[in-house]
Amino acid sequence: MTENLEIKKKLVHRWFVHLQNEICKQLISLEKNKKFTLNSWKKSNKNNEGGGKSFIFTNGKIFDKIGINQSTVSGKFKKEFRSKIPGADKDGRYWASGISIVAHMKNPKMPALHFNTRFISTSQSWFGGGIDATPSYKDHKEKLMIHKKLKLICNQNKKNYTKYKNLCEKYFYLPHYNEQRGIGGIFFDYEKNNWKNNFKFVRDLGIGFLDITKSIINKKKLLKWNNRDKKKQFIKRGRYVEFNLLYDRGTKFGLNSGGNTEAILMSLPPKPQWRIKNE
Amino acid sequence: MTENLEIKKKLVHRWFVHLQNEICKQLISLEKNKKFTLNSWKKSNKNNEGGGKSFIFTNGKIFDKIGINQSTVSGKFKKEFRSKIPGADKDGRYWASGISIVAHMKNPKMPALHFNTRFISTSQSWFGGGIDATPSYKDHKEKLMIHKKLKLICNQNKKNYTKYKNLCEKYFYLPHYNEQRGIGGIFFDYEKNNWKNNFKFVRDLGIGFLDITKSIINKKKLLKWNNRDKKKQFIKRGRYVEFNLLYDRGTKFGLNSGGNTEAILMSLPPKPQWRIKNE
Repeated sequence: MTENLEIKKKLVHRWFVHLQNEICKQLISLEKNKKFTLNSWKKSNKNNEGGGKSFIFTNGKIFDKIGINQSTVSGKFKKEFRSKIPGADKDGRYWASGISIVAHMKNPKMPALHFNTRFISTSQSWFGGGIDATPSYKDHKEKLMIHKKLKLICNQNKKNYTKYKNLCEKYFYLPHYNEQRGIGGIFFDYEKNNWKNNFKFVRDLGIGFLDITKSIINKKKLLKWNNRDKKKQFIKRGRYVEFNLLYDRGTKFGLNSGGNTEAILMSLPPKPQWRIKNE
Repeated sequence: MTENLEIKKKLVHRWFVHLQNEICKQLISLEKNKKFTLNSWKKSNKNNEGGGKSFIFTNGKIFDKIGINQSTVSGKFKKEFRSKIPGADKDGRYWASGISIVAHMKNPKMPALHFNTRFISTSQSWFGGGIDATPSYKDHKEKLMIHKKLKLICNQNKKNYTKYKNLCEKYFYLPHYNEQRGIGGIFFDYEKNNWKNNFKFVRDLGIGFLDITKSIINKKKLLKWNNRDKKKQFIKRGRYVEFNLLYDRGTKFGLNSGGNTEAILMSLPPKPQWRIKNE
């Protein structure tokens, strides 16, 4: 059983690393200037507790900023966290691997896109993740396309799309405005049963994210936009910053558990703005 | 005693309203274009639970953005909050009045300035507040000037400057970078004894904030700066956003207790940026 778990960990880690490379290759190849920043980090110098790599690309023709993060780390949860994490109450040790991507587009008619999948192991083990989109420009057809694609991937893997869709809406929510962050997507966590099926679902989502992203870019890269569209996008990015710093569990967890600050805050959009009434 | 408290509330509220008007008059008069935005709001339509006024001025020659907030509200704390608030555990009713100002300067050689004073009444009552500065440009002389002025006001009112200075450093701290938000100042809370003396201290601080702000502006308004200085300021503003949304108790409290979102987030700086390694 333990041996089996070790194999699973290896397979998951390898997939996330492969997917990161594939996404980098396919998305950054869309840009003319291909210079990106690589932040390769280790969790600690003392023990072999893993680390990660962040690729960050900025100021492109397609992407104002895209961050493509992969990390595989292990350690021991602090006592105050353990009660909140399944299977960690008696033994605080954990292993976690994941990939996380946030793309903030130059063309304000394209939505910001977010994708994350992860596998976490304590005395239990589970998958989690999701895909969601945050447009500043209404596009009903595009919303339908994204949700149709996500529903298809869920159905193909016998996953409950409606449940995941509702979880996503509940999660990406700004209570102080009583509004969704974006147009939703799917969100899931604590998927424990049938590892093989879950792993396939997670792999399909990675490929699905790449498909959705490329399809949006291809459809919209030549669309004209003006300063008013861009201003609207900057304001939407202000809300994105608010969500990530005020409510996002991943951000809080990362900062509280001594993760890599730069990699955690990679998700923050460039040039967010806050609207002044009547301005 | 109750009658006495009602008089105190009235005096405090009147002072904050007067100070808000005075600061608006004196600071916005420094600008050529004097057009500001006034957001006047009520806490609720049903009961007479007070409200407030925010003056927001943007894109000036001196101020990129300055918000000058005054509010006086009452209500009942939610049950989950009561244990955290002195004197509210048995009776959740409260009354609170305060003034809060955040100035983000156009000239990146001037620090961002923050000032707040408040009087809160449950079954107990107390003053709280502080003044602090967040420069993006090192200026040892200016730091000394600010702290000397604050120390003088504390001494004149028999307040422990060193204690307040340490509280300020502890409060405006970003643990994920292990760094202070700015160069400190003073911070105090739960000042209960000797109402008359506390009220005088709070009034002196209001005048002191105006003095410090005008002195910095006069000294630096003609100082030249370049795009590199401005970029540094935008990056510092990124950290300012991080602090306010991740850690500031006032922001969290305001949003959780159904305060006026626009007034609460008034403190966020315009055009924050996040640095990319090697960029």
